[in-house]
Amino acid sequence: MTQLEIARQGIISSEIEEVARQEGLQPDYIRRNVADGRVVVPANVNHKNLRPVGIGAGLSTKVNANIGTSSDAPGLSAEIEKLNVALEAGAHTVMDLSTGGDISGIRRALIEQCSVPVGTVPVYQAAIKSISNRGSIVDMTADDIFEAIEEHVRDGVDFITVHCGVTREVISYLEKKPRLSGIVSRGGSFHAGWIKHNNKENPLFEQFQRLLDIAKSHDVTLSLGDGLRPGCIADASDNAQIAELNVLGSLVVEARKNGVQVMVEGPGHLPLDQIETNMKLEKQLCHDAPFYVLGPLVTDIAAGYDHITGAIGGAIAAITGADFLCYVTPSEHLGLPDALDVRNGVIASRIAAHAADIVKGVKGARERDYQMSKARKNLDWETQHNLALDPQRFKEIRDRSKTKGDACTMCGDFCAMKLASEYVDNKGKCL
Amino acid sequence: MTQLEIARQGIISSEIEEVARQEGLQPDYIRRNVADGRVVVPANVNHKNLRPVGIGAGLSTKVNANIGTSSDAPGLSAEIEKLNVALEAGAHTVMDLSTGGDISGIRRALIEQCSVPVGTVPVYQAAIKSISNRGSIVDMTADDIFEAIEEHVRDGVDFITVHCGVTREVISYLEKKPRLSGIVSRGGSFHAGWIKHNNKENPLFEQFQRLLDIAKSHDVTLSLGDGLRPGCIADASDNAQIAELNVLGSLVVEARKNGVQVMVEGPGHLPLDQIETNMKLEKQLCHDAPFYVLGPLVTDIAAGYDHITGAIGGAIAAITGADFLCYVTPSEHLGLPDALDVRNGVIASRIAAHAADIVKGVKGARERDYQMSKARKNLDWETQHNLALDPQRFKEIRDRSKTKGDACTMCGDFCAMKLASEYVDNKGKCL
Repeated sequence: MTQLEIARQGIISSEIEEVARQEGLQPDYIRRNVADGRVVVPANVNHKNLRPVGIGAGLSTKVNANIGTSSDAPGLSAEIEKLNVALEAGAHTVMDLSTGGDISGIRRALIEQCSVPVGTVPVYQAAIKSISNRGSIVDMTADDIFEAIEEHVRDGVDFITVHCGVTREVISYLEKKPRLSGIVSRGGSFHAGWIKHNNKENPLFEQFQRLLDIAKSHDVTLSLGDGLRPGCIADASDNAQIAELNVLGSLVVEARKNGVQVMVEGPGHLPLDQIETNMKLEKQLCHDAPFYVLGPLVTDIAAGYDHITGAIGGAIAAITGADFLCYVTPSEHLGLPDALDVRNGVIASRIAAHAADIVKGVKGARERDYQMSKARKNLDWETQHNLALDPQRFKEIRDRSKTKGDACTMCGDFCAMKLASEYVDNKGKCL
Repeated sequence: MTQLEIARQGIISSEIEEVARQEGLQPDYIRRNVADGRVVVPANVNHKNLRPVGIGAGLSTKVNANIGTSSDAPGLSAEIEKLNVALEAGAHTVMDLSTGGDISGIRRALIEQCSVPVGTVPVYQAAIKSISNRGSIVDMTADDIFEAIEEHVRDGVDFITVHCGVTREVISYLEKKPRLSGIVSRGGSFHAGWIKHNNKENPLFEQFQRLLDIAKSHDVTLSLGDGLRPGCIADASDNAQIAELNVLGSLVVEARKNGVQVMVEGPGHLPLDQIETNMKLEKQLCHDAPFYVLGPLVTDIAAGYDHITGAIGGAIAAITGADFLCYVTPSEHLGLPDALDVRNGVIASRIAAHAADIVKGVKGARERDYQMSKARKNLDWETQHNLALDPQRFKEIRDRSKTKGDACTMCGDFCAMKLASEYVDNKGKCL
């Protein structure tokens, strides 16, 4: 049975116990949300050593880190390093998006070493195999896609991105209202190209029941991909994007009927004033399925700093409906991230997630800021270090700039915290 | 005459001509907003080689970089380097907050080299002088403060932060409703300590007319400081903060009556859901005076990354009323920024400002994203480089990860942009 089915029977699984422990919430509260599909707990029965994580309503905002090889950088060791850096920096899940080297071997090695849920995009591997076996992506068969999915599921992947919403009808909107950036999702471009070339429907849509049966067999959570997400500000919230979201909403219903856990992926590039609408629309059209967003990126021009662009969008997204933030690294739009990029990407998304959790009323979030500021007021640097989002970075800068006294080199003798205590607190009893 | 007085007479000054040219707007549109006090053009008659900048309604969002020595790092050369880095990174104004070394000499050197408006906080220098002449800050006289202001004004400073709103009544709110972090503004703590120790009213409030006369003499713009800004999430939007804002609103009216340009400073630390209210309240209580915010920082726990925390808050602030963002650097709360921190701080705030300008409808903002994404779609890396917010950083990452083909190492052969063109655009004519 899947977590969804177990929860519906009123049973609290050990996975839900663990999520409740992490979140400091009552297990039955989580169970009810899992039963309603408002929370997912991605936990493939074949993923050994998994510490499950809950994603969705009432829980803290989660952060995913994408890692994985490309044809230009196909080695395993760099990905193991990125995995470790991502986990150290506090990523709640990791996706292996490898498209280079021994893809199956890399995936298995990463799953084995990874204590948090692992996601993949099986169609990447199907496409690559099709190129080597049949000469092109568009000659891929439906069976190629499902075989790749079955392999990933058997290997213990906890959630898979499946671009079921890239249908003939949905991509027809691209003809009706042309885009500046077209399709920027890799999976989306594979499926759209395949559909147009073969003049057939997307197998993941047409044979959705087959997909559900595979997912159900190992309790893999479906992450319904947004193959037509906007790739630039000019294409945001267009007809094609919303048409796909609407299709995903109907698939959410089907998945839940079949006892399969499901979440929905979202944009992408969005101007600041379209984020809230997008989050609310997903909750409405997709029946409160957890929303997993990539960014959103609030401008197209900041390549080199898209972890910041994504943190701005992610924070707004998370207070208006997003449950799960896919990080963006400084290398986005430019190249494969290195380990430092992974670190910076995870931290930036965690800042967005935490800032939102303060407002969402997530247990312990506001209290951590309270304790941090209390320590800051007391010039208690050790407690500040321990409570910092990234204690390592805190220490680096503090060590570089340590002053003689209690204060820091920013203000030196003119530290307001110090002065206020001297003149106002103590003498004036003002504070 | 000040820019405000000139504008009221219906005359378009050369400074307004220059602002109109930069913004791509009609000079008379700017003039009307300057006349109404909704825009300021800080331009001290003694600042030679100044290229004026407009701040306020209808204009692009501006970014300030704080530099300056402290007692631990008193040298000029490091500050000249930071000035150059800030200007290269695109700061629209620079504030010299020096509190160490030859403060007057450093200020004069910075103004001489600086082509954008320069701001200062004269009470810092008055306080330091008072310590050396009288033994403590609280023994500073009203004349000490006004003499420091006069010196800064004569030297050519374009805008000065003056904490006129830290009044006896306002600080009494700190007793009624104690704070976690007390006073975190240096100027605020000097004035509050002085008021409590001497049991007298703040000279900058009591002798506000004297301040206006000095400001008017050289057309220095007053930046009414928020000495009681919240220094942590727990203290956000509290009674003391709002009481001060209300006082500042009445001083805005006085300043405008006297023909003195004026803007208002704002928080500080604010949770995500209090930013919009704070921006709208300032516009209401301060009669649409340009709003200059520090951050806002949306969490207290991200020391080491407060440029990101500030960019999140700044973007939301700028679409809901803020006109001018004071950068925050990665060193905030830990130490004096170095040149790299200055660079990262300016870029992060510029991302926030630009993302907001897209939504504000600022001329050219959305078009730049459009051209960037067009170049991205065409895999035209040279145009992308030229349009990037930080072309230098763009090139660094691109060079590190250049692939053999047109695409980048992120996707290598599986670039969605390439694949979509191959399979969908050309063969399927879908896009």
